[in-house]
Amino acid sequence: MTHTEATSRISFEKLVTVLEQIFAKHGVSSVNARVLAVNCATCERDGSLSHGIFRIPGYVGSLKSGWVDGCAVPVVREFGPAFIRVDAMNGFAQPALKAAMPRVIEMAMTSGAAVVAIKDSHHFSALWPDLEPLAKAGFVALSMVSGLACVAPPGGTVPVFGTNPIAFATPVAGRLPLIFDYATSTMSNGDLQLAARAGEHVEIGTGVDKEGKLTTEPNVILLGGAMLPFGGHKGAATALMVEIMASALTGGQFSSEVDISAHPGAETSKTGQVLIVIDPNRGGNFKFADRVKTLTQSLRIAGQSRLPSDRRYATRALSDKSGIPISAEQLRELTSLASTDIP
Amino acid sequence: MTHTEATSRISFEKLVTVLEQIFAKHGVSSVNARVLAVNCATCERDGSLSHGIFRIPGYVGSLKSGWVDGCAVPVVREFGPAFIRVDAMNGFAQPALKAAMPRVIEMAMTSGAAVVAIKDSHHFSALWPDLEPLAKAGFVALSMVSGLACVAPPGGTVPVFGTNPIAFATPVAGRLPLIFDYATSTMSNGDLQLAARAGEHVEIGTGVDKEGKLTTEPNVILLGGAMLPFGGHKGAATALMVEIMASALTGGQFSSEVDISAHPGAETSKTGQVLIVIDPNRGGNFKFADRVKTLTQSLRIAGQSRLPSDRRYATRALSDKSGIPISAEQLRELTSLASTDIP
Repeated sequence: MTHTEATSRISFEKLVTVLEQIFAKHGVSSVNARVLAVNCATCERDGSLSHGIFRIPGYVGSLKSGWVDGCAVPVVREFGPAFIRVDAMNGFAQPALKAAMPRVIEMAMTSGAAVVAIKDSHHFSALWPDLEPLAKAGFVALSMVSGLACVAPPGGTVPVFGTNPIAFATPVAGRLPLIFDYATSTMSNGDLQLAARAGEHVEIGTGVDKEGKLTTEPNVILLGGAMLPFGGHKGAATALMVEIMASALTGGQFSSEVDISAHPGAETSKTGQVLIVIDPNRGGNFKFADRVKTLTQSLRIAGQSRLPSDRRYATRALSDKSGIPISAEQLRELTSLASTDIP
Repeated sequence: MTHTEATSRISFEKLVTVLEQIFAKHGVSSVNARVLAVNCATCERDGSLSHGIFRIPGYVGSLKSGWVDGCAVPVVREFGPAFIRVDAMNGFAQPALKAAMPRVIEMAMTSGAAVVAIKDSHHFSALWPDLEPLAKAGFVALSMVSGLACVAPPGGTVPVFGTNPIAFATPVAGRLPLIFDYATSTMSNGDLQLAARAGEHVEIGTGVDKEGKLTTEPNVILLGGAMLPFGGHKGAATALMVEIMASALTGGQFSSEVDISAHPGAETSKTGQVLIVIDPNRGGNFKFADRVKTLTQSLRIAGQSRLPSDRRYATRALSDKSGIPISAEQLRELTSLASTDIP
């Protein structure tokens, strides 16, 4: 799924409207539909295609099977000046986070830091859209999400971790925020599925078969095997931290505890998300965003041609100017989903 | 430097006493000497040999050259219910952290979370000893430290990052805390130096020469070249996060801003350290440490034979029983350093 198949372009606003209709048609409340549609369109606009409209069938499958509650009303509770728990009530994570956001920002401003622990939430998108508004407001933010078990620990054969992404955002003076957002698995699940469909092999080290032997066959990894964490034992430790923070600390389910077998077609995970927000200027006699700018300049001078999020912002600029590329087939699919009533 | 050369064993208390004498002889205040000696002996006891007595000449070099202030009295200031800044006053990081610790724990208990930003500090040890007491007290803790620039960003030739370690600790019901602590570089500086001394090659991907070409020669990496971050662009993003958190947010120097050229013999870095402490049980109707225990059990069942910190605790148990292995040569060196007055 690349932009080269595109046969037309759609405005961000128009895409949001179509996606809102799809979510609404499949049982999502209007307030939640808006949040999910903006999130999904944002990913598509920025070229995060594996978290854009590519994911709509998965959203719809989870909704149709009754696995996720599109009308969930998150319950936000504060436990002290720097700690918020959100029960997503088996709804999507983004509306749960949005419900907490005004207080998160006030807390970080007043207390210097705030932790948000969301449980029983379905996060089925990238993490960077959650963090960008916080970095734009001057905060640094770190988030972690657990998922459906598909990653084995080192030396193991049984999946325990989800792709367990981790993301970090920081303001940079005079520029859009610097944000990284990566799966702690060797690949994203979406990319592995795409490789399988394309009949391509993956790099050795990506995953193992059901006996724990390394394989380059995506289908062997997907069917009974497991991916591995990126970066050897260090990446594995990072995946473990994400599991502990996003599932244990939040009071949610571990990736390996999620059982979607009774919900055919469901693709989202009911786990949790943790968010740490810090006011980097608090009590400091320096301008944090200026310092980060100095650092990014050092990196470019040292030879790093592309920093995290550079490519997304370039794609965003193109989309903002000329519209978001969309193929005729994609548009047909979306239009069809938008006009389908729930059976 | 392995335990096999050992010709005798020394008790933890005795080793602490000898190390305290060394620090005191080289201009460290008694309160700071105690903190550093316990930290260093703890590393040696647990088999973290590259952060144990192996580091003493480096400590002494930094002290003798006037680069670090062994008598520094850290200045601790609070900025709200969840934020502490510490100016280490060009002293070591561990006494600075210790000075803040009682309030950090109170804050985390009262507010749910606490952030400690230490600047102008020299951290020349492992991070796990900083975190273990917090996890034993029931908190999760995450720490990051920047250092002397020796790691180039992806595609680069000039070092910008230090080895920039990151560490995470969590309680586990009925066991010692689970802690990981890893350099975001491909190797630790100490291990690279040991490979150079032994005339060994390192794996391709470890580092580059001064033209940015990959090399397996440790000396080429050390002299004019640079190490690379672990784990490709994901590890590089993690190294960047550590640099932003430990240097920019703290108000300290970046790894590439540290200039020790006027202090021959100095080896420590004057950068910063950040620590995030969270009360994982706050407001939750579950037992966090029990949940982590369940997760560690899943990992072992899935085939992961060794979890982070397993090996250290096994070494600790041996040391506690039979004493800490020490070679005759090491003991002579330490005794000599302990009785040397500053010139």
